[in-house]
Amino acid sequence: MIHAIFGRRYTFSAAHRLHSDQLSVEENRLAYGKCNNPHGHGHNYVLEVQCAGEVDAETGMVINLATLDEIVHRTVISRFDHTNLNLDPLFEKAVPTTENLTIAVFELLEPEILKTGCKLAKLRIEETENNFFEYSR
Amino acid sequence: MIHAIFGRRYTFSAAHRLHSDQLSVEENRLAYGKCNNPHGHGHNYVLEVQCAGEVDAETGMVINLATLDEIVHRTVISRFDHTNLNLDPLFEKAVPTTENLTIAVFELLEPEILKTGCKLAKLRIEETENNFFEYSR
Amino acid sequence: MIHAIFGRRYTFSAAHRLHSDQLSVEENRLAYGKCNNPHGHGHNYVLEVQCAGEVDAETGMVINLATLDEIVHRTVISRFDHTNLNLDPLFEKAVPTTENLTIAVFELLEPEILKTGCKLAKLRIEETENNFFEYSR
Amino acid sequence: MIHAIFGRRYTFSAAHRLHSDQLSVEENRLAYGKCNNPHGHGHNYVLEVQCAGEVDAETGMVINLATLDEIVHRTVISRFDHTNLNLDPLFEKAVPTTENLTIAVFELLEPEILKTGCKLAKLRIEETENNFFEYSR
Amino acid sequence: MIHAIFGRRYTFSAAHRLHSDQLSVEENRLAYGKCNNPHGHGHNYVLEVQCAGEVDAETGMVINLATLDEIVHRTVISRFDHTNLNLDPLFEKAVPTTENLTIAVFELLEPEILKTGCKLAKLRIEETENNFFEYSR
Amino acid sequence: MIHAIFGRRYTFSAAHRLHSDQLSVEENRLAYGKCNNPHGHGHNYVLEVQCAGEVDAETGMVINLATLDEIVHRTVISRFDHTNLNLDPLFEKAVPTTENLTIAVFELLEPEILKTGCKLAKLRIEETENNFFEYSR
Repeated sequence: MIHAIFGRRYTFSAAHRLHSDQLSVEENRLAYGKCNNPHGHGHNYVLEVQCAGEVDAETGMVINLATLDEIVHRTVISRFDHTNLNLDPLFEKAVPTTENLTIAVFELLEPEILKTGCKLAKLRIEETENNFFEYSR
Repeated sequence: MIHAIFGRRYTFSAAHRLHSDQLSVEENRLAYGKCNNPHGHGHNYVLEVQCAGEVDAETGMVINLATLDEIVHRTVISRFDHTNLNLDPLFEKAVPTTENLTIAVFELLEPEILKTGCKLAKLRIEETENNFFEYSR
Repeated sequence: MIHAIFGRRYTFSAAHRLHSDQLSVEENRLAYGKCNNPHGHGHNYVLEVQCAGEVDAETGMVINLATLDEIVHRTVISRFDHTNLNLDPLFEKAVPTTENLTIAVFELLEPEILKTGCKLAKLRIEETENNFFEYSR
Repeated sequence: MIHAIFGRRYTFSAAHRLHSDQLSVEENRLAYGKCNNPHGHGHNYVLEVQCAGEVDAETGMVINLATLDEIVHRTVISRFDHTNLNLDPLFEKAVPTTENLTIAVFELLEPEILKTGCKLAKLRIEETENNFFEYSR
Repeated sequence: MIHAIFGRRYTFSAAHRLHSDQLSVEENRLAYGKCNNPHGHGHNYVLEVQCAGEVDAETGMVINLATLDEIVHRTVISRFDHTNLNLDPLFEKAVPTTENLTIAVFELLEPEILKTGCKLAKLRIEETENNFFEYSR
Repeated sequence: MIHAIFGRRYTFSAAHRLHSDQLSVEENRLAYGKCNNPHGHGHNYVLEVQCAGEVDAETGMVINLATLDEIVHRTVISRFDHTNLNLDPLFEKAVPTTENLTIAVFELLEPEILKTGCKLAKLRIEETENNFFEYSR
């Protein structure tokens, strides 16, 4: 029984504004800098999903590609692509930083990927080509 | 007298919503697809500025790097980075498509770059890693 | 009336074997090197389509994205993706080098793109990240 | 004694067809989609070899670059570059998915790299810029 | 309490010559190849700093971006950018291989990052697009 | 007779110091900034050679790949890779800016490429991922 990791990258575009009601105007500016600008700005997010599992002896695959694509599009892309993250119920109380987005996407994907027999080994979101966030259990 | 091209890349993040008041609801959806979503979405734009000029015999340079950076930051980055393009006066009447953004940035940069003795040979904006726009006179 | 260029990148995977019936065994090896291996090999091709046109005053766009995608998928991607290029009628007599592929794709796309009111300004195919081919009228 | 990881990337091009004799026609199509097309297709594979070892106090290196290149070219590149993977004895019984390719390459490289005093910490193969596979003990 | 990783990439340019006084002329050539050329050569190094920490419930961030930038610029970029690594006191006795550079940068950054409440989970330096080095405790 | 462009990318690493004997200390600092640091620094240069020519009816190629590689390695890579540009006779009087390097490489390559029946359509050198230089007749 051989375990391997299959990773696949997806992209989506969204707007967000970083602002915490628990912080003062000055604290917001110190925490978020230009990302605190009142009218929001946006990103091309790159989402990398890493699935760990047994390589099936018959198919030679860790996970069916079409199945993974269906899960990611249904639970993540269709929800966040071309939206304003601040308006999503998940970010009613939490600030839509990419840290919080990464954890939220992990929790949306994990139960669906477990049903395929794989584990969600790691989730990575690249906010820009120079900033990324990773989360795993 | 030898002419060459110097290109330099900059990045900025902004939100936009594609919607034309001159089009019906249905026409807007056909023209812009998901980019017509009411609350906007965003991008990491990559801006590539191509300056054409004579290579100075003494310095061996087409244009001083610090001068170009100052021009681009003052006229473009500080204006658009971490903003919502729809709120910029330039897009009061024009839809903030990347085509219109490219032309607007070209017109902001060209007179400043001409003062340095170079020409603005071409301007390129990459909206995503798969979509780009180019403009030149 | 302002002209601009919109470029969009697509990918497809295909196998080919470079071998010319007009050349001897030795000449084939000299011309194509390892690409002459009898059982073929493959590439992830990146196709870049550059459309030149007027920016529409109402929509702010050079060409409708969905229209372009439909053209490229119908005439190019569905024909070549996950196939063996040597078996395509276009390469019955011509060797499926990336030069010939680039010209063939240009001729497939050009009449369709002209119907949208744009010109096909340039076509670029990247065979690997280090080799590319460009063609324009 | 300080351990570090040195990673180095190589590329090779190969064709494959995904088809399992243990599956029906319909099951093959469901498992592999377009990759089941009878005449094969190809990829530019990127192979990333990660060696873990002690940084030599005299040379300041984990592994000699020329030694690693020789190993990878002899055991992997010369065997798979510009070939059809389905014809390799390793894939007589196993389907040449990138999962199986990654494990096969790991097993070819590991004993050779161990002879240099390093461990093969991880092997990664990128099938396209959006799909990758990783394997480690 | 949720832990996540935030990674950020920086670049700097430096020259180095690989030569060990403990090795003979011939041994130096075998160990370093062209990198042993007497007058040095250079690289655009990409430095990736991975910070692991708790996502702050109020700000939704692992580490303040401006704080991290200040640390990296003060301790690493201002020290090594546009310099000759062989002249740095750190490389008086050690050869400035990228292995040794990676470990040196790790030791410069770690105490400063610990002060922010984060851990320096991993440091990665890319010497070229095909060679990289990673170090972690 | 169909003309097309074939482009191929090569890399080399070199050190340089930007300093003009015709300028004062202060003028040198203004012109070159950190690149004027006395001990030099380095770059991974990416060289892109664009050859324009007729697609040969028999071979389907613009230029033989092995021939081009031999030319570029003999005239450019073997001369500049892992060297200090300031010590090259070409830069005895000219400052080794990337502008001057691009023109020098163009002049080294052009006569050799003309012998193959192709034209050297354009030469591009990327100094970093954000700065590039192009030259053509």
